[in-house]
Amino acid sequence: MILPKSKIEFYFEFGSPYGYFASQEIDAIAETFDREVVWKPFMLGPAFKKTGSVPFMEVPLKGPYCVKDWQRMSLYTKTPWQMPEKFPTAVLAAPRGFYWLSDQGKTELAVTFAKAAYKAYFADGRAMWTNEVTADVAEECGIDREEFLQAVQTPEVKARLIEEGQKAIDSGVFGSPFIRVDGEDFWGWDRLSMVRDWLKNGKW
Amino acid sequence: MILPKSKIEFYFEFGSPYGYFASQEIDAIAETFDREVVWKPFMLGPAFKKTGSVPFMEVPLKGPYCVKDWQRMSLYTKTPWQMPEKFPTAVLAAPRGFYWLSDQGKTELAVTFAKAAYKAYFADGRAMWTNEVTADVAEECGIDREEFLQAVQTPEVKARLIEEGQKAIDSGVFGSPFIRVDGEDFWGWDRLSMVRDWLKNGKW
Repeated sequence: MILPKSKIEFYFEFGSPYGYFASQEIDAIAETFDREVVWKPFMLGPAFKKTGSVPFMEVPLKGPYCVKDWQRMSLYTKTPWQMPEKFPTAVLAAPRGFYWLSDQGKTELAVTFAKAAYKAYFADGRAMWTNEVTADVAEECGIDREEFLQAVQTPEVKARLIEEGQKAIDSGVFGSPFIRVDGEDFWGWDRLSMVRDWLKNGKW
Repeated sequence: MILPKSKIEFYFEFGSPYGYFASQEIDAIAETFDREVVWKPFMLGPAFKKTGSVPFMEVPLKGPYCVKDWQRMSLYTKTPWQMPEKFPTAVLAAPRGFYWLSDQGKTELAVTFAKAAYKAYFADGRAMWTNEVTADVAEECGIDREEFLQAVQTPEVKARLIEEGQKAIDSGVFGSPFIRVDGEDFWGWDRLSMVRDWLKNGKW
């Protein structure tokens, strides 16, 4: 009996540049090794509260390093990039909308929307900290704008995101991106090549 | 006129596992691309004070992740590893001894000692937080034990390490390992492959 290969859990925060860069590669990596990706947005805020962290941007020395790093990573990975006008900030409608979609079984659409939301924020400089602009992006993905706007403001959808975030933290997730597969955890965009090696070899 | 290729500055803290893993690879990387490495130990403590960081081990979620990560990195990079009995802790005689040696022009010996000191702490589980054991390691590298012991306790040598650390921080160094070459900064063991690509291509 051949057991199905376990899925790759891709944890990310919509306001995280390194999550954005990883989101550009994760599907291709999975496909190469015949795996599926489960996209799992969460809010970094509660995780940072748990670890006593603050956004990179606000840390002396690390902040300027990251700003420069994101620019060169754009060139290095051939991924469009611009520093959003408001950053760091809470990006909430996108992950709420994601779970609203995926809870309806529209997993593929949710991922399409996730990619569009990341692009809107980090490549196109759109105001993804607002419900309105996020609803525009949803509409561009073929999602009903008004339904989206209403959904992301319901207590149920808000609670759903909080619940997913708590589950992530409880399972050990503390950063973005954070990739889990076969019980192996990988923190950071920098670890994608190690993820590849794991998927290729299945051992260390 | 051919300008000489600039050197690779390798900043590291002797108590840093990721610095240890990077120290196993940096010389080979440099050699491949016909570069020299300048080894630059510094104390992470003052850098952490500046960035408001604490050692990974003491951070919820991140601590357990790192402990598991170091074990698998040992397998992944084929580098001996054991968690030191006392960790994290101040490892001071090693970087002091390093600058005492290199200030005498014994650069090669200083690097040999640095590698031996890292191995002693992270592979052999020796008490590198003590002057005595660090002097044993120095002796094994052919350094006069008593001279070493005296040197690392002088105010001049202690001040020298503090000065080097301050210069590192002032120049933007905030973690270990931290690699600087051609004005490009790279934080973390995870970035060695990006360092390689930079040295190979000289552009992004």
